[in-house]
Amino acid sequence: MTGTSDTIFLAVTGWDPEVWLSEFAKNAPQRKLVLNTDTDKEKVRYALVWKQRPGSLADLPNLKVIFSLGAGVDHVFHDDKIPDVPIVRIVSPDLTMRMTEYVVWQVLDHHRLGLRYRQQQAGKVWHEDRRQPAAHEVNVGILGMGVLGRDAALKLRNLGFKVSGWSRRPQTVEGVISHSGNDGLRDFLKDADIVVSLLPLTPDTRGILSMNLFAQMKTDGPLGAPVLINAGRGGLQNEADILAALERGMLSAVTLDVFNKEPLPKDSALWTHPQVIITPHAAASSSPSALVPEIIAQIESYERGEPLKNIVDREAQY
Amino acid sequence: MTGTSDTIFLAVTGWDPEVWLSEFAKNAPQRKLVLNTDTDKEKVRYALVWKQRPGSLADLPNLKVIFSLGAGVDHVFHDDKIPDVPIVRIVSPDLTMRMTEYVVWQVLDHHRLGLRYRQQQAGKVWHEDRRQPAAHEVNVGILGMGVLGRDAALKLRNLGFKVSGWSRRPQTVEGVISHSGNDGLRDFLKDADIVVSLLPLTPDTRGILSMNLFAQMKTDGPLGAPVLINAGRGGLQNEADILAALERGMLSAVTLDVFNKEPLPKDSALWTHPQVIITPHAAASSSPSALVPEIIAQIESYERGEPLKNIVDREAQY
Repeated sequence: MTGTSDTIFLAVTGWDPEVWLSEFAKNAPQRKLVLNTDTDKEKVRYALVWKQRPGSLADLPNLKVIFSLGAGVDHVFHDDKIPDVPIVRIVSPDLTMRMTEYVVWQVLDHHRLGLRYRQQQAGKVWHEDRRQPAAHEVNVGILGMGVLGRDAALKLRNLGFKVSGWSRRPQTVEGVISHSGNDGLRDFLKDADIVVSLLPLTPDTRGILSMNLFAQMKTDGPLGAPVLINAGRGGLQNEADILAALERGMLSAVTLDVFNKEPLPKDSALWTHPQVIITPHAAASSSPSALVPEIIAQIESYERGEPLKNIVDREAQY
Repeated sequence: MTGTSDTIFLAVTGWDPEVWLSEFAKNAPQRKLVLNTDTDKEKVRYALVWKQRPGSLADLPNLKVIFSLGAGVDHVFHDDKIPDVPIVRIVSPDLTMRMTEYVVWQVLDHHRLGLRYRQQQAGKVWHEDRRQPAAHEVNVGILGMGVLGRDAALKLRNLGFKVSGWSRRPQTVEGVISHSGNDGLRDFLKDADIVVSLLPLTPDTRGILSMNLFAQMKTDGPLGAPVLINAGRGGLQNEADILAALERGMLSAVTLDVFNKEPLPKDSALWTHPQVIITPHAAASSSPSALVPEIIAQIESYERGEPLKNIVDREAQY
């Protein structure tokens, strides 16, 4: 029994489904992918979801697995009618590498004074700042040491940075100073010169990047006040607090890839703040051509009776 | 015979000598460092040079070694009265790491569409470009595979880029496609999406980054036309040709840290070109606190009778 006649339900909103359909047609032409379940409810065995319409996964009596098409899974949980089947998060080398690129890019942009040099270029000013610290004098702290955080940590270490990590549960990564739990967070924040947020969005982490957290940060690093980079989820951050912390010199600069509301509204003061770098939720886009073969491989291994990998903890919601 | 009573001549122009004097006083208080040789010509055994005044190294009968204080040594050769003693180039992990940071930073800035996203931010435009290639689809070509080029190559590989290198003499670096000589240059240019110049400035390389070279580049990479990053020496580049190549779409974007004339004159069109990133010769600054202990260690090993390392080839001038 290979199950190849079973139907896969593509439950996405806000994305063009065409490219997913064509990648499936290319990689697994024998599998049937549908965009709605009106006629075939009994045949649906798998669901691939990105911000599925609430309730759209209910009443699928033979649904076996839900695959999230993004690295985060918070987009799945806005729906209170999710059937009680395993939810699998996508873990893909392609996604991981793209996120690491983004983190390394932005860490280096702050470390190597990108904002200052761009301002100088705009004014035709030639002035090298010779107080440039070496990488080993700068502590990059990563909030969230899952697959993405750990990979970024290793690549930053390879460039010479001091790296520390914080996660809810203790993690060990070679050469990385590890902190966990609430007490660990205090110690983590005391040392970090550049804080990179890769946290999942859960009831516990919503709004965590707020004044309460900024107030625990150091104030006298080699770059001045700390830098914040959020490449996780917009819901992690309090945007008014970020602007206030910049104003008061508690943060020296910020890179944000994600926002409370996306697209970021035109009237947000973040757009024009000279110490804010904005990218349009582009840190690590799911590339269907890279992800589809991996999802098919997971389905095939499941059908051979192997255990599912990367199952989401429903209680913790990540 | 420890030689500690011998004098060291600090022959620098354009730099403040104070920080070097104080680092020497801290690290080797028993050694005498002088800024001119008027009274002590016979005692000078070593010279530390950065753009020395022409002729200032002549008539030092006991000079044994010239140490260049920069990674490049072209600044030594503008003087036709250099005595016939070994010239030692500085090779320092600190300098190497800083240069690698710079190269990785700028490669990522182009790869991850920094220019485009900054332009969008200035106009409050939210638009993600989903055609973002993966690192393994992008070939970064490094011109100049000395200590700096090889280190940058390895770190870029570690981030997933395809890396190739070109050098005058054949070099082997694991995982890096190596080219050498004039024929090799043609093959190198056919494949590179991002060309990073870390070449030494010699009679052979002066002006090499010109229309003749740009015309041999590919035109249809994943980023469009190739990107040029010059972190070597300003004398390598023809700035009018760079502007013309941008105009004609032969180059899609450029990062320049070095220029024909520094500071870059206000009337240079490079300052305001939207596809040009300018940094003020800041890629890898010699940090006296990192370099002085290494120079002292080299002097001490020389005085123990060990061979000098990193001797410059006078004929090739690097």
